[in-house]
Amino acid sequence: MAMASIVRTLFLLFFFLFSVASPSTSTHHHHHPLDPLSPSELANVSAIIKRSNPSSTHKLTFQYIGLDDPDKSTVISWLSNQTTTTTTPPRRAFVIARIDQQSHEITVDLSTNSIVSDRVYTGYGYPLLTLEEQAEADELPMKYAPFQASIRKRGLKLSEVVCQTFSVGWFGERKQGKRLLKILCFYLDGTVNLYMRPIEGITVVVDLDEMKVANYYDRFTVPVPKADGTEYRASKQKPPFGPSHNGMSVVQSDGPGFKIDGHTIRWANWVFHLGFDARAGPIISLASIYDVDKQKFRRVMYKGYVSELFVPYMDPTFEWYYKTFFDAGEFGFGLCSLSLEPFTDCPAHAEFMDGYFAGRDGQPIKISNVICVFQRYSGDIMWRHTEAGIPGKVIREVRPEVNLVVRMVSTVGNYDYIIDWEFKQSGSIKFGVGLSGLLEVKGVTYTHRDQIKENVYGTLLAENTVGVYHDHFVTYYLDLDVDGEDNSFVQGKLKTMKITDNSSPRKSYWTVVSETARTESDARVQLGLQPAEFLVVNPNEKTKVGNQVGYRILPGSLAGPLLSDDDYSQIRAGFTKYQLWVTPYNKSEKWAGGLYADQSRGGDGLSVWSSRNREIENKDIVLWYTLGFHHVPYQEDFPVMPTLSGGFELRPANFFDNNPVLKAQPPKRVSWPNCTTTHI
Amino acid sequence: MAMASIVRTLFLLFFFLFSVASPSTSTHHHHHPLDPLSPSELANVSAIIKRSNPSSTHKLTFQYIGLDDPDKSTVISWLSNQTTTTTTPPRRAFVIARIDQQSHEITVDLSTNSIVSDRVYTGYGYPLLTLEEQAEADELPMKYAPFQASIRKRGLKLSEVVCQTFSVGWFGERKQGKRLLKILCFYLDGTVNLYMRPIEGITVVVDLDEMKVANYYDRFTVPVPKADGTEYRASKQKPPFGPSHNGMSVVQSDGPGFKIDGHTIRWANWVFHLGFDARAGPIISLASIYDVDKQKFRRVMYKGYVSELFVPYMDPTFEWYYKTFFDAGEFGFGLCSLSLEPFTDCPAHAEFMDGYFAGRDGQPIKISNVICVFQRYSGDIMWRHTEAGIPGKVIREVRPEVNLVVRMVSTVGNYDYIIDWEFKQSGSIKFGVGLSGLLEVKGVTYTHRDQIKENVYGTLLAENTVGVYHDHFVTYYLDLDVDGEDNSFVQGKLKTMKITDNSSPRKSYWTVVSETARTESDARVQLGLQPAEFLVVNPNEKTKVGNQVGYRILPGSLAGPLLSDDDYSQIRAGFTKYQLWVTPYNKSEKWAGGLYADQSRGGDGLSVWSSRNREIENKDIVLWYTLGFHHVPYQEDFPVMPTLSGGFELRPANFFDNNPVLKAQPPKRVSWPNCTTTHI
Repeated sequence: MAMASIVRTLFLLFFFLFSVASPSTSTHHHHHPLDPLSPSELANVSAIIKRSNPSSTHKLTFQYIGLDDPDKSTVISWLSNQTTTTTTPPRRAFVIARIDQQSHEITVDLSTNSIVSDRVYTGYGYPLLTLEEQAEADELPMKYAPFQASIRKRGLKLSEVVCQTFSVGWFGERKQGKRLLKILCFYLDGTVNLYMRPIEGITVVVDLDEMKVANYYDRFTVPVPKADGTEYRASKQKPPFGPSHNGMSVVQSDGPGFKIDGHTIRWANWVFHLGFDARAGPIISLASIYDVDKQKFRRVMYKGYVSELFVPYMDPTFEWYYKTFFDAGEFGFGLCSLSLEPFTDCPAHAEFMDGYFAGRDGQPIKISNVICVFQRYSGDIMWRHTEAGIPGKVIREVRPEVNLVVRMVSTVGNYDYIIDWEFKQSGSIKFGVGLSGLLEVKGVTYTHRDQIKENVYGTLLAENTVGVYHDHFVTYYLDLDVDGEDNSFVQGKLKTMKITDNSSPRKSYWTVVSETARTESDARVQLGLQPAEFLVVNPNEKTKVGNQVGYRILPGSLAGPLLSDDDYSQIRAGFTKYQLWVTPYNKSEKWAGGLYADQSRGGDGLSVWSSRNREIENKDIVLWYTLGFHHVPYQEDFPVMPTLSGGFELRPANFFDNNPVLKAQPPKRVSWPNCTTTHI
Repeated sequence: MAMASIVRTLFLLFFFLFSVASPSTSTHHHHHPLDPLSPSELANVSAIIKRSNPSSTHKLTFQYIGLDDPDKSTVISWLSNQTTTTTTPPRRAFVIARIDQQSHEITVDLSTNSIVSDRVYTGYGYPLLTLEEQAEADELPMKYAPFQASIRKRGLKLSEVVCQTFSVGWFGERKQGKRLLKILCFYLDGTVNLYMRPIEGITVVVDLDEMKVANYYDRFTVPVPKADGTEYRASKQKPPFGPSHNGMSVVQSDGPGFKIDGHTIRWANWVFHLGFDARAGPIISLASIYDVDKQKFRRVMYKGYVSELFVPYMDPTFEWYYKTFFDAGEFGFGLCSLSLEPFTDCPAHAEFMDGYFAGRDGQPIKISNVICVFQRYSGDIMWRHTEAGIPGKVIREVRPEVNLVVRMVSTVGNYDYIIDWEFKQSGSIKFGVGLSGLLEVKGVTYTHRDQIKENVYGTLLAENTVGVYHDHFVTYYLDLDVDGEDNSFVQGKLKTMKITDNSSPRKSYWTVVSETARTESDARVQLGLQPAEFLVVNPNEKTKVGNQVGYRILPGSLAGPLLSDDDYSQIRAGFTKYQLWVTPYNKSEKWAGGLYADQSRGGDGLSVWSSRNREIENKDIVLWYTLGFHHVPYQEDFPVMPTLSGGFELRPANFFDNNPVLKAQPPKRVSWPNCTTTHI
């Protein structure tokens, strides 16, 4: 939740993890209108804006640069004419820049190298925080005398202190607030697990536009939890080690099984486009599946990505109350992603893709291996049957399941979010979210539970260490285009039917009562209250026997908000009120928590758009799904959390005329008699 | 749901799939008191009972023979003294036999080769159906003139007809019913997918004790759905084939990573006993996990297994209303398991275990490869963190996840249940249920949805073919012994706390209000209604910082019953009313739907036991978890269903003092430079 960034670190990152894109990549040919901005495009965009706002007279920072998608109709048309035309629709960039302390929304046309529009945003809220400004802010306390005194008073060494930035939220203030961050500091001195060693009681408030300490609080002193037991590096562990198990790896004798062509990925019966965005992370577009019977690709999803994450903590005290983070809109879910480690973050047989974003100065920065793609064979069964009921025959047909996974990990300060898109040959798309990394803990005086007589808002995990209760809500934007744009949202409600006329020995059964949502209000669903099927159908396309083709949502990881509706953070995060929403497609409606999430006040975002109650029947519609976790920490989460996983699935529902993997060939049975292991 | 069994098939099965255990296995030494009965023990048990009930004067059939566990205290004591003693507690068998049309519960002591007790059961309900009696019943229509006439009338060939048995349930009949089965018949003639070709309108009722047709109905004729498109065998598919993908396999350079010693399995930090039972299928006992810090194994679960499956269909018409199956208690979940196919049902690197059950005549029958065990590496991450917030350092630590899976597939007629027990090094046990196989479909006159103006109780899947709505409820018996027998069930309810005194800028937060269940009524939970943590704790054992050690339940696949409470099937399946129940341990309380599930009337089983409202705090308790699926069929389920998966998880919760896999070593990185593939 806190964005880990310090000037010195960032400096190193630039040289070790990232490398500024070399000019050679600027000749990259654009294969696809949805390709993310290339390093040269990013550089070009910032150069154009800098020319209009020379540094001699303007203070200019780039908070976000990303692709401004061509209109959907343009992309669809381009796609259908791909074989006859090689021209890509004009490329545009969308930029949010801070110019002289104002937020500018700037559109740049890269075919004409010109600014198409430049609008000053005057509403509430601020754009994405840059890594650089957070890093600068983190350094401010070190040179701030009252802070130095606070550290001395605690008997701590300033050289072992590291600070982290935290967004401030909004708590009912009436007048427009300044661009602020809060800074909390932690103690190393024998560990790298700084998050387990909070220096409680101190809050530094930074004015970002002025880049100076705006307020300072040192309210109380509690012991800094000890370093002992907090290390998670293998090199620092002492015996006994364990548990251990024999290693295993996957062998793909015929290659990886998928092809990456630019940003287009082809695997089995799927084709889709994979982009990367500083705010959203991975973006999957134009996912289509090949229908063996119809002998053609059929459209499933125009675009999907993580639109927002809301992570409120449940400690209302002065030092903690404001921790109600929007990890995508404040910190950048893509911006917080870091290079994946081959062999461990992704299996040995994975392939990797780099990502680029613009630094504060507009220069392109590369994140190597930011996304990986791999075939998953976990030993599961795609379908099977043994038939022992036919005289003289025993029939057994089994097809093992091999899926394709697209993975990114975003490390938003302490937390590591593992985001998996998993494609199945049977037509499903599974959405997986894994939570790992480090808890945000609170320093307390207590060393044993029996001492605690007050509400500490969490679990005592170790001596002087409380893991504070919190939630994670992850909201997906899913622009499904099931066999085309015009779709409807259908709830098939399972209703108990009572039999009272003795027409059957039964007294009851259930049936499905289907209701097509006419307007947005019909499609706000709190999942789990009522058994139902949830479908996106194309009412204009039928199967041979007359069912509307569709995809259904198999919910998972349900958690609704527990904050009161009138609480400020909940107003900002109104999109978590329902797990399902459907909106008519609107190019400007991308971010569930609003375009300016930092210090937002709930005036923009999904719940506001939906309140217009527009028509959504047989229209181009967007589905929004929020998965959630109420996180009550346990001692097993200390000092690093075993992954907690959740997810949901989109699954074809009368989309195909029959089982789409019926004719999948059984796998070749292979062995590797000559395998000898080499440790590398 | 229907038990596929025909005399001729069974005959073949005995010779092809099964083989009667050879006498050599009778010298098998019992390593463990919970080992299932060996072939020689099964033979011995039936011989002892046959001697007491000579065939000259008695009609005797064995409906169930299984291990009668030693008392829990005896097993625990044996386990703790394992190193000092080699004597296994006396072996006993529990038998349900039909003797002269009465159900006998017989206990046989195998140390004295004597019958310890023989009790006639006079209550409602009947024991497990044998495969042989179902097979005999299936043949009755073939020689029954009215049935022959019905087939002729429909213009069908008797030689292409196969019949299947269906349990009859109970629908309010007052007097004790006879042992009945209903027989429905299907048509092959160009397919092996008999379930897609029901011959509707005909119901044959068989009296099992008399083994004759008791009632016969031929009420109407509808077209038998065509064979075309129903085949699922690879050999019968016509091009175009697909989808296809490159094959992959797992290589374990250092061996499988686990050891099977008799029925005891050791892997990573886990040890457990794996048994097989004709009724329950796999039984996991004495699961303990090694605590690296405490340097000892700690008990987690005394015993766990699938106690019952309830599968009600939602068509109240005369031919379908009674379909409300208890797949474990009526048909035998283990009895319906068939040999697993290497390479497809389980990965190439799996190891297999055989199972044995007693035939109707008491002779042991072997099911080869009934269970498989394998390491699963699906590319997931056990834990990770990248730390970019410390000056001069970029730290990345990742541990990939490798789990151990125990799998059985039970094919209860048309449906294939894939049952996975998955053990994680982090201490979790995941319970997975996959549904595949063939739907139970209903023949109808309709060939297109537009023709349908009435309720057909399902989805039109193909011409003349309706997939009928139904549920699957799978109930697990989980006798957790968290660090010992005396445990408590705790609900940590997440409650919104409002702040009205301006003590914080927040208006609300949530906290955890823990309630320990005192009696059984406190522990009946309909999951999903209220956010809560559900724990089984040992109130007598604390972590270093004073938390009660425990395991928590991470729910999944929630579905509650939709039948009305007063409906007969729901009375029989009262255990599905709540997803969670807790009972005090009672050796006799094993089967959630009652010991005699066939034609049961709800007088025995979990809901009845729980109604005694016994004390469960700080006692030896058993947790019951029901996962459920409301199954609305879609065309993708035709003619064979892509697996639909569900599950839940038990996860340590303050069981360990910290992350139990913190000190797991990073895996060796290996490559196989010399691998050459051999197709086998």
